Amino acid sequence: MKPLVPFVRDVEEGPHPELTAALRSHLPDVDLIEHAEIDPARLSEATVAIVDGPSADQLASLTNLGLVQSTWAGVEAIIPAVPEGVLIARMVDPRLAVTMAEAALAWTLYLHRDMPRYARQQRDRTWLAHPLVHAEDRRVGIAGLGVLGVAAARVLSDHGFAVAGWARSPKAIAGVSCFHGDAGLERLLERSDIVINLLPDTDATVATFDAQAFAWMPHGSSLINLGRGPTIDDDALLAALDSGQLDHAVLDVFDVEPLPIDHRFWVHDSVTVLPHITGPTTVETAAVIAASNVRRFLATGVVPADALVDRSLGY
Amino acid sequence: MKPLVPFVRDVEEGPHPELTAALRSHLPDVDLIEHAEIDPARLSEATVAIVDGPSADQLASLTNLGLVQSTWAGVEAIIPAVPEGVLIARMVDPRLAVTMAEAALAWTLYLHRDMPRYARQQRDRTWLAHPLVHAEDRRVGIAGLGVLGVAAARVLSDHGFAVAGWARSPKAIAGVSCFHGDAGLERLLERSDIVINLLPDTDATVATFDAQAFAWMPHGSSLINLGRGPTIDDDALLAALDSGQLDHAVLDVFDVEPLPIDHRFWVHDSVTVLPHITGPTTVETAAVIAASNVRRFLATGVVPADALVDRSLGY
Repeated sequence: MKPLVPFVRDVEEGPHPELTAALRSHLPDVDLIEHAEIDPARLSEATVAIVDGPSADQLASLTNLGLVQSTWAGVEAIIPAVPEGVLIARMVDPRLAVTMAEAALAWTLYLHRDMPRYARQQRDRTWLAHPLVHAEDRRVGIAGLGVLGVAAARVLSDHGFAVAGWARSPKAIAGVSCFHGDAGLERLLERSDIVINLLPDTDATVATFDAQAFAWMPHGSSLINLGRGPTIDDDALLAALDSGQLDHAVLDVFDVEPLPIDHRFWVHDSVTVLPHITGPTTVETAAVIAASNVRRFLATGVVPADALVDRSLGY
Repeated sequence: MKPLVPFVRDVEEGPHPELTAALRSHLPDVDLIEHAEIDPARLSEATVAIVDGPSADQLASLTNLGLVQSTWAGVEAIIPAVPEGVLIARMVDPRLAVTMAEAALAWTLYLHRDMPRYARQQRDRTWLAHPLVHAEDRRVGIAGLGVLGVAAARVLSDHGFAVAGWARSPKAIAGVSCFHGDAGLERLLERSDIVINLLPDTDATVATFDAQAFAWMPHGSSLINLGRGPTIDDDALLAALDSGQLDHAVLDVFDVEPLPIDHRFWVHDSVTVLPHITGPTTVETAAVIAASNVRRFLATGVVPADALVDRSLGY
């Protein structure tokens, strides 16, 4: 009999037939069944589950797990739902790194080339050119130097921007000034015209971007949040935008998603709201990687070290 | 006595003290004087003029010219004002190629990453993600493969887009499919999701983008005009946008600039209007290049071949 592998998805998101089909095609020796369709008597059979998004209730019903494989890079919603001792593997997909680096470049160019200002001018039918800043004179700072942050730093540096990065622990990237630790964050922020946040959501990163952080940034600088919503203090961000300390914010992630309809971000002239679209899972590549990890765990009891989540760090 | 070199600028644009100062610092052996300040009795002395923008009336007053050096790459407004037999040198600045290639990348990513659609959704407070297209599946076509077009093709190809180009005569660029001639234009347009126009304004390019051209483009494709306004038939473009044949147009150049306040482009939901900002002259580099050409002409009577304008081609 094939081993049962439940496929667990956020009930509110509904089914994802493409991802289910792709996982099945790469796991022919496994009985991959959507959680809702599993006979309750069989739930304790499963030693591995594949999880696509936050799914605490369904995970609690699986009492004999050894591994939870996430299809997402961000696992902050999964960790609290998985008992200590059960391994969690996050998605480490080179394709996602390419997609996120492209997004970092696209939204940096959006700010670098003054697109929000020219959009406001079009609304007012104003024909007015502003001085061009060359890429080498535009200082871009990246908070978070994991796989995604490093990929973004490389693409932005290759384009010619003056790139620096910050991480909890020391890092070295060719052509990129790397800061670390609490003092390093201040140094990164005070030298950056555009800051890109790629931090994960952990106990240590909550409200990293608070009133103090925005005060460290140069007057008229901008923020791009591609990481997680809770890393930013929304009220402090709005105050910094209202005062002109910050020029613009591009936000792809939020404390509550979808962003509530009455949130000021929607209507703020200096905020670009995106519906969490910059780094979607690519079905084909994510299915191959998740299937590979699941097969390896079923055969050997381990998963690749770079995918294994450290619960103490939160990613 | 130092040779007199008039500096000629569009009267409506007013003076440009930074450019004047930079030119003077790179031409210490020349008497560079703004046209309006030259004693009329001396106008016939000048064998070289430096021109920044359209300036037909002032040029007509200089009766003994051998060379007109433009600070712009586009010389369509200068050619009719300069007698046959007088050399015209256009600005060929590697810095401009970098700036234009960056603009081509920035506005391609703007369309590639659906920024206009997400901006409309923000206005309506709509939280809705659309499928991501990978760069290798996005076909970008470049019309015009001069110095600027080739630089743009290389940057877009390096980023991973599926790039093709078109020019009047055959070209070869590594990694870029090159079409040429009348039949080649149809082939370029029918395979391109995003078309970037970098054609100069000449007798041969007027209304290159007409109703037929837009019909050749795939349904739902987009246009970026960084070249010159007259290469596009505005009414045909508006019809293609209204019918949905074209999804979006990014326009940086227009038949009449500034764009008249009552033009439909200003208020069209599928048009991004820019005030001719994508490829400004960089004072430092342009002054060095113009000064070098002027010195060479005064010493030898010639200018570099790549800068020399072919009146029969119009660039």
